[in-house]
Amino acid sequence: MGIEIGGEWTLAESCFDSTVLGKCEAVMSLGNGYLGLRSATEERYVNEKRGLFVAGTFNSFGGVAESEVCELPNAADFLEMGISLNGTDFSLTQGTIQAYSRKLNFATGELHRHVVWMSPDGQKYQLDFYRITSMRNLHTIAQKICITPLSADAEVQITTGINGQITNSGSQHFSEGAKRFYDKKYMQLVQTTTQTGIEFVITTTVSGLSNPHIAMDRRKIFSVFNTHISKNQKLIIEKITTVHTSRDKLSEGMSTAKLQSIALSNLQDQSSLGYDEIARLSAESWQKKVWDNIPVTIDSNNPRDQLSLRFAQYHLQVMAPFHDNRMNIGAKGLSGEGYKGHTFWDTEIFALPYYIFSQPKTARSLEEYRYLSLPGARDKAKENGCVGAQFPWESAWITDGEVTPLLGAADIVTGLPIPILTGKIEIHITCDVCYGVWQYYMATGDEDFMERYGYELVFETANFWASRLEEGEDGLLHINNVIGPDEYKDEIDDDAFTNYCAGWNLYLAMEYRDKLEKSNPELLADLEKYINYDLWQQKVEKVYVPKSREDGVIPQNKTYLSLKEIDLSKYKNQKRVGSIYNDFNHDQINEMQVCKQADVLLLMLLMEDAFTPQEKRANWDYYEPRTLHDSSLSLSTHSILANDMGDFSLAYSLFERACAIDMGENMHSSNDGIHAGSIGGIWQCAVLGFGGLRLVGDKIRLDPKLPEHWKRLEFYAWLQGQKFKIEITQNSIQIDNLTQSGTIELEILGNMFVVRNRLKIT
Amino acid sequence: MGIEIGGEWTLAESCFDSTVLGKCEAVMSLGNGYLGLRSATEERYVNEKRGLFVAGTFNSFGGVAESEVCELPNAADFLEMGISLNGTDFSLTQGTIQAYSRKLNFATGELHRHVVWMSPDGQKYQLDFYRITSMRNLHTIAQKICITPLSADAEVQITTGINGQITNSGSQHFSEGAKRFYDKKYMQLVQTTTQTGIEFVITTTVSGLSNPHIAMDRRKIFSVFNTHISKNQKLIIEKITTVHTSRDKLSEGMSTAKLQSIALSNLQDQSSLGYDEIARLSAESWQKKVWDNIPVTIDSNNPRDQLSLRFAQYHLQVMAPFHDNRMNIGAKGLSGEGYKGHTFWDTEIFALPYYIFSQPKTARSLEEYRYLSLPGARDKAKENGCVGAQFPWESAWITDGEVTPLLGAADIVTGLPIPILTGKIEIHITCDVCYGVWQYYMATGDEDFMERYGYELVFETANFWASRLEEGEDGLLHINNVIGPDEYKDEIDDDAFTNYCAGWNLYLAMEYRDKLEKSNPELLADLEKYINYDLWQQKVEKVYVPKSREDGVIPQNKTYLSLKEIDLSKYKNQKRVGSIYNDFNHDQINEMQVCKQADVLLLMLLMEDAFTPQEKRANWDYYEPRTLHDSSLSLSTHSILANDMGDFSLAYSLFERACAIDMGENMHSSNDGIHAGSIGGIWQCAVLGFGGLRLVGDKIRLDPKLPEHWKRLEFYAWLQGQKFKIEITQNSIQIDNLTQSGTIELEILGNMFVVRNRLKIT
Repeated sequence: MGIEIGGEWTLAESCFDSTVLGKCEAVMSLGNGYLGLRSATEERYVNEKRGLFVAGTFNSFGGVAESEVCELPNAADFLEMGISLNGTDFSLTQGTIQAYSRKLNFATGELHRHVVWMSPDGQKYQLDFYRITSMRNLHTIAQKICITPLSADAEVQITTGINGQITNSGSQHFSEGAKRFYDKKYMQLVQTTTQTGIEFVITTTVSGLSNPHIAMDRRKIFSVFNTHISKNQKLIIEKITTVHTSRDKLSEGMSTAKLQSIALSNLQDQSSLGYDEIARLSAESWQKKVWDNIPVTIDSNNPRDQLSLRFAQYHLQVMAPFHDNRMNIGAKGLSGEGYKGHTFWDTEIFALPYYIFSQPKTARSLEEYRYLSLPGARDKAKENGCVGAQFPWESAWITDGEVTPLLGAADIVTGLPIPILTGKIEIHITCDVCYGVWQYYMATGDEDFMERYGYELVFETANFWASRLEEGEDGLLHINNVIGPDEYKDEIDDDAFTNYCAGWNLYLAMEYRDKLEKSNPELLADLEKYINYDLWQQKVEKVYVPKSREDGVIPQNKTYLSLKEIDLSKYKNQKRVGSIYNDFNHDQINEMQVCKQADVLLLMLLMEDAFTPQEKRANWDYYEPRTLHDSSLSLSTHSILANDMGDFSLAYSLFERACAIDMGENMHSSNDGIHAGSIGGIWQCAVLGFGGLRLVGDKIRLDPKLPEHWKRLEFYAWLQGQKFKIEITQNSIQIDNLTQSGTIELEILGNMFVVRNRLKIT
Repeated sequence: MGIEIGGEWTLAESCFDSTVLGKCEAVMSLGNGYLGLRSATEERYVNEKRGLFVAGTFNSFGGVAESEVCELPNAADFLEMGISLNGTDFSLTQGTIQAYSRKLNFATGELHRHVVWMSPDGQKYQLDFYRITSMRNLHTIAQKICITPLSADAEVQITTGINGQITNSGSQHFSEGAKRFYDKKYMQLVQTTTQTGIEFVITTTVSGLSNPHIAMDRRKIFSVFNTHISKNQKLIIEKITTVHTSRDKLSEGMSTAKLQSIALSNLQDQSSLGYDEIARLSAESWQKKVWDNIPVTIDSNNPRDQLSLRFAQYHLQVMAPFHDNRMNIGAKGLSGEGYKGHTFWDTEIFALPYYIFSQPKTARSLEEYRYLSLPGARDKAKENGCVGAQFPWESAWITDGEVTPLLGAADIVTGLPIPILTGKIEIHITCDVCYGVWQYYMATGDEDFMERYGYELVFETANFWASRLEEGEDGLLHINNVIGPDEYKDEIDDDAFTNYCAGWNLYLAMEYRDKLEKSNPELLADLEKYINYDLWQQKVEKVYVPKSREDGVIPQNKTYLSLKEIDLSKYKNQKRVGSIYNDFNHDQINEMQVCKQADVLLLMLLMEDAFTPQEKRANWDYYEPRTLHDSSLSLSTHSILANDMGDFSLAYSLFERACAIDMGENMHSSNDGIHAGSIGGIWQCAVLGFGGLRLVGDKIRLDPKLPEHWKRLEFYAWLQGQKFKIEITQNSIQIDNLTQSGTIELEILGNMFVVRNRLKIT
C-alpha cells in the first residue's frame, strides 16, 4: 500500500486499491504550468476524482450559496477509455491482478501503468498505459495504451472521447457548447464558463484503431471502435488531445470559430508526431528546464531524500503558471479542487524562495501577479475603512479581489457549518506579499522589477498598515481582531506575527523610500502619491510588538499564554490532521493553548536577525509541544528552526514528516490535491535549512549543516543575476559562479566572502 | 441476466451485473406521483445513475447552450450508504456473491434486495435492503438495512447522509443551501434551483446506530457510525428521509426557515413510526388506491401477462402527479432524466385512457394542466403567425410554453449534432390535446370539467387550425412543413395524421358549439370570443385529407409513397432501436419509405369509424413492413389494430414486444427511465385491445377478443360517473355496475345495451 520509491527518479505504486485513488491521482498528477491533470485511470472507479485544470480560468457557480466563490473549473475529461476485452469490461476491481505497477518518472514527466490482468472469465491480458502532458507544447496531452492478449485472441471494444459532465464536486462551471466530429477522426467539445465566459476547446483524436461508431450525448462526444487482436500480438492505441482556452494570451479577442480552428490545427500537428515523439520532446524540455539546469542533488544513504527533492522540484515546476503573469500558484497547484485553485500566502512564504533562487523569471511573474492584483487590494482596504493595499487572503483572477468562502465544515456542537473568518481578518497576507517582494529583490537585485512594480507594492502595503493600526489605552498602536498564521485562534488582538511583520513592512517602506531618494529621485517623484513617510515613521515608532516574558517566551497574542492547557498527546500522535475537531468545536479550541502552526516560531525564521538564540530556544521549547502541525506549512518551518538550533536529528525527522505530507502513508491527505506550500517547504528544508542558504537582513548567508547521513548536497542558485553551483559536504563548501559576469558577497559560516569564479572552503 | 417474473406480483432480478444497472434503477424505480426515485443501490457503482425527481420542479441550467432547456432537476441523493465490513467496503464487484435477489413487490411497493456475500478476505455476510416511497405520506422515503455477519464478528462502519453533488448528466440545477445537523441526529440539506428558485429541503435520520461522527463537505452532509456485530447477530439500520419543496402547494409563500421546520417535524413524526409501520401504511394505500380498487386481472397460462399489467398499473400510479393540476406526466415518468421530465402527446394518446377509465380524477387533473398551460399555447400560436392555442410539443411548467431542445445526437455525415425540429413543426400535439378532452368527456360525461376548461380548449385548438391551414393551388387547405408522429419524416406536407386530426378538431368545435347553443347558451355567451363558427365551417369543408390510392393505401404524406425503398430487414431485426442511424443520417432517412411509427395506422385506431376494414387491412399490409417501431409508442397501436383485424397471434406477440420495451431483455432501453407512453400502451393492449373497451364516435363500445390462452380478463372502468366491473372470458362478458346510480348505454359485440345493475352475455 502507498507510495514507494522506484529508484531515484521514480515515484511508484505497486499495489492497486480502488478505495484510495485520490493519493496517486494527486501526487502523480501531470502538468506543465498551463494545465494540470490528475492521474485518474483510463477505466472508471467509484472513488476516482478526475480533474483537468487550466491555470487562471476562474469561474463562480454563483447562486444563493454563501459557500460558492470563484474557483478553477474542472474541465472535460478525455483520459477515460472504456476497454472491453472479449465482452468483459477491463476493471481492476474484478478478476485477478497478476502484475501491477504505476510509476511517475520525474526525469521525463511520463506516467506508466503496467498491468497483467486475469479477467473474471480466466483470460489473461497485459496492458500498458503511458501518458504525458507536454512540456514543449503546453496545450498537448498524449496517451499511449498497449493491449496484449496472453491467453487467446481477443475481440476488443474501445470507447473514448471527451466527457464534459465533469463538475467541481457537483458544481458545474460550464455551459455546453459545440460538439463536432471532423472527418470522423477528430472530436471537439467546446465548453464555456458560466459566469466569466471563458471558452475551453478540447480536441482529441485516436489512432491505431479504425471505423469508429461516432456518438454524442449530453456534454459528451465519443467514438466506439471494435477490433480483433491475435494472441500475443500487441495493439497500440494513441490518443492525442489538445486543450485551448480563450484565456490564453494568444487567444484574446479571438472568435470561437477561430479558436476551434487553431485547436484542431494544433491537434493535427501534434498527432502527426505520434506519442513517442511528443513524449521525447517533452522529456527534452524537462531536462533543459529543470534536471540539467537546476537539479538539487543529495548524496544520502536514504534514497527517499533525493526522491523527495525531485518530487518537490517536479511539482514546483508543474504548478507554476510561468507563462502568464496574470496567474499565480494555487494552494493545491493544479492537482485538485482543494482550495479552489486560490492563491494564499503559501506563494510568498513557502514556494517563492524556490523560484527566486532557481527560476527568477517565474518568481518575478508571481510577484507581478500581486502588482496586477493591486486594484482589488486597494478596494479591499477601502471596504475595511483603510487606505493603501490590503491583499485578499485568497486570490484568484487578478480583478477578483477577495475570494475566500464564508462557510466551512460542520460544527459538532451547533450542527451548523463553521463560518470562515480568514477572508475578513487573516490580514498578515499583506505583509507576506511585501516580504515576497523583499525576498525577490534581495536575492535578485532586479531593479527593473522594483521600479515597475516592487516599490509601489511595498509603499501601498505600508499605507495599509499605517491606516490599520489602532491606538490603544496604553498610547501604543495595536492590531486587533485578526487571525494569525495559527488559524486555531480567531478574532485575537496583538498577534505577534502580524504586529511584527506590519512594523517591518513600514520600516521597509521607509528604507526603500530613503534609498530611492538617493538612487532614483525621478521615480520617487512618480511614486509620490503612495508615499507617506512622516506618517509611516510616526506609526512605526508606536507599533506594539509583544515582548517576551522573563523566560523568553513571546506571547503569540494578547491572551494565548493565559488560555487553558489540555493534554494534547492524543492529537500530537494523530494519524489524520485536524482530529482535535472530533472532540472540540472551533470556539472551544480558540480557548486552549494549542496551535495549528506556531506563529512565533515562523516569525523567528522569517525575521531571524530580530531574535537571539536564547529567545528562539525558549519559544521553541514552549510552542513546539503545543503545535499540532495541522497546517501542512508547519513542519518545514520547524525543521529549519530545529537545524538552526542544532537539533539535527529532530530537524531531519521533521523534514521526513514534511515530505510525508504528500508522499507518506496517509492515503487520504492528498485527495484534494498536493500541498503546494508544503512542497515548497521540502525544498526549503534542504536548501535553506540543511544547505543554509538564507536572506538575513541585508545579507545573503550560507551556513550549511547537513544531516549526518548526507555526504553531499549540491544545488544551483541564481543570486544577483548570476547562476551559482553550490556543493556542500560534511566538511567542505564549494561555490562556482557559472555566469561569471560579476561578483557576489556572501556571508559563509559567519565570515564575509566575495565570490567571483570559485570559492572552496574546507 | 435481466428481468424475471418473481410470482404474479413481483418483478425480480436474480443476477447482479454492475455494467447494466440502469435497467433495474428505472423499471424498479419507486415513487408516488409526488416524487420518483430510481432504484440505485446503497453502495456505489461506476455505471449507476442515481435519481430523485419531484414532479413539477422544473429548472433550466441556462447558459449559452442551444441544448439546455428546462428539465426536472435531479435532486440530492440519500439512498447511498457506505458499508464497511471488517475494513472492507461492501461492493458486489469484489468478493463472491453467494446469493442474490432484488424484487419489487407491486402489491406493497416495497423493493427488497437480498445478498449473501463473501468478502475478498473470505468473510461471509448476509445483507437485506428494504425500501419504500410512502404512498401515505408522499414526502417520505424509508429504508431498512439488515446486516448479519455469518463467519465471525464484524466491525461495521456506516457512512450515510445527503449528497447534493448529483447533477443531471453534468448540469447542476441547484445552488447549495443550508446544511444543518439537529441534535446530531437529523441531517438537513437545502438546495435551491438556480433559475426558478424552488427550494428543496431534504431531511434524514438514521436509527439503529449511535454516536455518529458528523461531517459536512461541499453540497454534502453525512454521519459516520461505527459498531460491532457478533456473528449471526442481525444489525438493523433504518434511515427515514423526507423531501419537501417550495413548489408544494402547501408550501407556497412559506419562508425557507418555516419549510425547514415543517420538513424536520414531518421527519420526526415519520421516523417515530419506524420502517415497518411506514411500509405497512404505504402498502395499505396501494391496496386501497389500486389493487383492491381497480385491479386488472388476467387468467393466462403465461404469468408474465398478469405481471405486465401490474407493472403497467404500478408505473401509471407512480408517474402521475394526481395531487397537483399544475403538473403532468413526463415521457419517462419520474424514473430518469430522459426527455427531461417533459410532457408530450404521450399523455393524451397513450396514458390518458388508463386514467379516464381507472382514475377519472387524475385524468381530469392532467387535462386541467393543459388548460392552465393555455397562455403559453396562445403565445406559441402568435409566434407562428396564428391565433388560438398551439400547444408546445414538449411541455414543462404551466407557464414555460415550448421547451423542446434544439440539438440532438451526432449526424454521422456532417459530424455535427442533429437539429431537433419537433418543437417547431410537430404540431399534431394540438389536436392530440383536443382528442384528450374529447376522450375524457366521452367517457366521463364530466360537464363541470367541460364548462370550466374543456370547451375553451376545444375552441381554441380549433382556432389554431383555422389559422394554420394554407390554401394551395388546388384551392384546398393544406398543412405544410410539419412532422407527423413518424419522426423519420421531417418538414413534410399534408401529413395524413395531422390533416385528418386538424379537420376533426374543427368539426368537434362546431359540434360542441351547437350542443352548447341548446344546453347552455349562457356559457356559450361567455365563450363567445373563442368561437368562430363560420370560419371553422368554411375551413373544415376545404381541408385536404389524403385520399387512398386504388389499392386502399393512404399516403402518409405528400411524397412518402414515391420515396426510395430499401431492404429494411436488418433494422426490423435490430436489437436496439434506432440502428438505422448507424448507416444513414437523418436527411437520408427522410428520403426513404421507412417509418419510426406508422402515422396512418395510428390514425386508423384513433379515428376508427372513419375507415373501412378494407382500408385498414390495405394500410396495415403496406405500412407494417415499413415500420421499425423505433418509437416505443408504436407496438401497442399495432397490437390493438392487429387484434381488431383478427390477427390474434400477431396481436399478442406485439403486446409481448410492447411489454418487453421496459421489462424485456434489452438491458439498456430503460437507462434514461421507463417509457410512460408505452406503459400506457400495455394497459391499452389489454383493456382497449383484447378487452375491446373503446370510445368510437359517440359510443362506448365493448368488443373483446381475448388471446386464446387467456381464460379470463377482469378490469374496472369508470363510465359516465359510475364504476363498472367487467369480466371477460373466451365465451362470456359480464358487466357489473358497482355504483348503481344510473344506467349506461354500451355497444357490445355490435348491439346496444343499457346496463343498470348487471349484464351477462354468453
